[in-house]
Amino acid sequence: LTASRSFRLGELAERVQGQLEGDAALEIDGIAALADAGPRELSFYAHEKYAPLLPQTRAGALLTHEKLGVAIAQVLVQDPVVSINELLDLFHPRAPAATAGIDRQARVDETATIGRDVSIQAFACVGPEASVGARTTIGAGAYLGRGVRVGEDSILGPNVVILDGSILGSRVILHAGAVVGADGFGYARRDGRFIRMRHVGTVVIEDDVEIGANATIDRATLGRTVIRRGVKLDNQVHIGHNVEVGEDTVMAAQCGVSGSTVVGRRVMMGGQVGLVDHLVVGDEAKLVAQSGVIGDVAPGAIVSGYPARAHREVLRAQAELRTLARLRARVSALERKLSGLADEV
Amino acid sequence: LTASRSFRLGELAERVQGQLEGDAALEIDGIAALADAGPRELSFYAHEKYAPLLPQTRAGALLTHEKLGVAIAQVLVQDPVVSINELLDLFHPRAPAATAGIDRQARVDETATIGRDVSIQAFACVGPEASVGARTTIGAGAYLGRGVRVGEDSILGPNVVILDGSILGSRVILHAGAVVGADGFGYARRDGRFIRMRHVGTVVIEDDVEIGANATIDRATLGRTVIRRGVKLDNQVHIGHNVEVGEDTVMAAQCGVSGSTVVGRRVMMGGQVGLVDHLVVGDEAKLVAQSGVIGDVAPGAIVSGYPARAHREVLRAQAELRTLARLRARVSALERKLSGLADEV
Amino acid sequence: LTASRSFRLGELAERVQGQLEGDAALEIDGIAALADAGPRELSFYAHEKYAPLLPQTRAGALLTHEKLGVAIAQVLVQDPVVSINELLDLFHPRAPAATAGIDRQARVDETATIGRDVSIQAFACVGPEASVGARTTIGAGAYLGRGVRVGEDSILGPNVVILDGSILGSRVILHAGAVVGADGFGYARRDGRFIRMRHVGTVVIEDDVEIGANATIDRATLGRTVIRRGVKLDNQVHIGHNVEVGEDTVMAAQCGVSGSTVVGRRVMMGGQVGLVDHLVVGDEAKLVAQSGVIGDVAPGAIVSGYPARAHREVLRAQAELRTLARLRARVSALERKLSGLADEV
Repeated sequence: LTASRSFRLGELAERVQGQLEGDAALEIDGIAALADAGPRELSFYAHEKYAPLLPQTRAGALLTHEKLGVAIAQVLVQDPVVSINELLDLFHPRAPAATAGIDRQARVDETATIGRDVSIQAFACVGPEASVGARTTIGAGAYLGRGVRVGEDSILGPNVVILDGSILGSRVILHAGAVVGADGFGYARRDGRFIRMRHVGTVVIEDDVEIGANATIDRATLGRTVIRRGVKLDNQVHIGHNVEVGEDTVMAAQCGVSGSTVVGRRVMMGGQVGLVDHLVVGDEAKLVAQSGVIGDVAPGAIVSGYPARAHREVLRAQAELRTLARLRARVSALERKLSGLADEV
Repeated sequence: LTASRSFRLGELAERVQGQLEGDAALEIDGIAALADAGPRELSFYAHEKYAPLLPQTRAGALLTHEKLGVAIAQVLVQDPVVSINELLDLFHPRAPAATAGIDRQARVDETATIGRDVSIQAFACVGPEASVGARTTIGAGAYLGRGVRVGEDSILGPNVVILDGSILGSRVILHAGAVVGADGFGYARRDGRFIRMRHVGTVVIEDDVEIGANATIDRATLGRTVIRRGVKLDNQVHIGHNVEVGEDTVMAAQCGVSGSTVVGRRVMMGGQVGLVDHLVVGDEAKLVAQSGVIGDVAPGAIVSGYPARAHREVLRAQAELRTLARLRARVSALERKLSGLADEV
Repeated sequence: LTASRSFRLGELAERVQGQLEGDAALEIDGIAALADAGPRELSFYAHEKYAPLLPQTRAGALLTHEKLGVAIAQVLVQDPVVSINELLDLFHPRAPAATAGIDRQARVDETATIGRDVSIQAFACVGPEASVGARTTIGAGAYLGRGVRVGEDSILGPNVVILDGSILGSRVILHAGAVVGADGFGYARRDGRFIRMRHVGTVVIEDDVEIGANATIDRATLGRTVIRRGVKLDNQVHIGHNVEVGEDTVMAAQCGVSGSTVVGRRVMMGGQVGLVDHLVVGDEAKLVAQSGVIGDVAPGAIVSGYPARAHREVLRAQAELRTLARLRARVSALERKLSGLADEV
């Protein structure tokens, strides 16, 4: 890396194993979106929504999947988004996440186990018998309760709360304000009032999971709430007690999963999807944004609407509804004709 | 209680006044869910969804409402969930919530009144003229503003925020990250811009209320936002300014209630329900998950959908919609026949 | 202002340039809602929902737009809500937001720039190279990352988190628990797993913006997420990466806007509205509560439902659906008649 963080286009194309169509000597100072990029910046084209921006962009060069009909230097790659992401590391080297060490104003219980090169920031609390793996960062004001275990290379943002006994893997990212391990919403009813269920279970979050800001993951009543390896949950997602979320499943913002529901692997949910309790969602199902799911979902199914059913059916039903006025007109015509016929007969 | 926390099944049956069908001398070491329990553990059967697990469970004994056809010792009780909850106290004695005392790194204003055996944890703030009742816990990083009053035996989780003048009763539980008393969302419009309304009202939360993690309860413009005795609000619920929620009402996760709406007693809301402002929801109404409520709801009514109306009607309308294709086919058949008839005539 | 905070009604009417109908000498001690006001209090009438309360109110005087048929002193003004808001300042003078100064238990990096009369409360963190404008308040436990800039006269509530590089204008209000600048939800997929996108962009929040408790505003992948002047976002709103929200737009609680969507000026959204990514919503559009928006919205359009379309059409479709049973009956009648006719022929 040069001090000025400037690269020749040829170097960049090589770095992403792309096919260069244009001047290899072009100097590139940075990466920017199509609308913002200037003549010394590299941009990328990855979504047809951006086609109208192509004739106007001032970008010096473009990463793209297929040759575009514009007079701009281009680097052809398989997936422009993946390649741009790789090049961002050149222009914006990953900062050391935080200065290692325990801040003098952090509170770490003397019975806690702290790994090598851990960063614990100001006003963070690490409780009794907790353990924090090597190179993990505990943000300012974050709280780890009694017996919490966090693996290596994980990042807990400011004001994250992890309650007693929760177990987090390695390379886990929790964004600011997320809460893991609060008691689930479970009551028994007696004489019209609610008796609070004890929640003696825990939460297990496996490796490579990312959880968004102000999301909430409740602890199990008995046993465990489990978020499997590679799951990505966006901001303000809610996961109820005893839920299990399968590997590499993603949920967009503000989804809510009720107690004891089991979500399979590689499931994709749009934003604001809700699932009632005790369901099973099969692997690789797709739940369209705002779906309200009240029954099991088969593996690979695509569902939408409330109550969620096959997305194709939902679209067809909506189309039919739009033809209802025409159907009514046909019935009126039939009535008139029939009345005429009856007169004739 | 024995040191090993092991009990004979006969003891456990007696404790919950259950009818024992099996070996009273069986040693039980713990409580677990059907899928997880081993031969020295007690499990329970309380939901037909779990019937498929019965033939495979390795549980040593089961709490159940009716005798099950499996060769496992059983304890028959009226409500297995209630009974399991009672027995959890044996195996998992309630820990003293927190060490009593004010942490040396907490900030308690000298004009605040602190009751007996209160626990105020590290980095918590208790503002001027606030008062905290006996045996209440204020979690790490929690904030109590000026004049806030909290009753006895209440638990405020880590990073909870209670703003100036809010009043909380006894045995209130606020989970981590909940915010009580932020200004409501009220503006007057003048020349296309918004003038912020002063919010000089307050929030009153009565006894035995539980509020979930990252939930928000706004203060009133004038007067009070009121959460009555026994209300249970799940994670990420939002309650707007000047709302009143009646006794023993429950709202599942991510419900939102807009300003000045009055919700009756023993109302039950599924997750992600939304209510617009200035409504009245009658006692014991049921609002199905994801309902969008834009009009008053009668006492005892069951509503669903957007805009929410009688759940029975919604189901009927959906069934009718599915028969639309058939209706269209009947109309086409009529048209053909009529055309044939006309030819004959 | 008198010490007792009591005013003659004539004084109050003058203050809001209202037309007094009643006794100018009437002593008024406070302001209260219709249902709560007593004979020495001023109330207001601004919403027909409150008409049933008029005959019973004990208020000493009323602010109203048009003369009401009740025997109570009245002050006629153009907008009673605006006028009440002005008078609240008399009875509840705005407190000095907080004592100016940096709390001895706050953490302010030595490279941060702190303006005049700033208040930084206990356990707040202000990071390296951050700057805080004059008279701004940083609440207890709040966090400002590296290089964050906040303008003048802004208020950041307790436990607010502003991550590295975010830029906030003047007179900005962020309520407790809001998170600004967390990484957006962007991944590239490779071999069924997700590669995390670098988020090297930032968030810009312009002047006079208000953001609710526990809301989340994500940083851009490249470039900026922008919240323009005068925008008001209610509690638990989520704004994705690279979104732009136009001037004076308001969103009620729990709305979610997905990545790269552009929302125009003076747009109004009810609660729990969701928008997918890469949309354009035109100026002054109205999105009814719980709308699920999956396509662009024209300027001034009113949309509702899922998928959101013209609100008028949605209402018509719902009305048609209710007539379906009748249509079916008409078809059955036709079938019977036709069968009779066929017999005759």
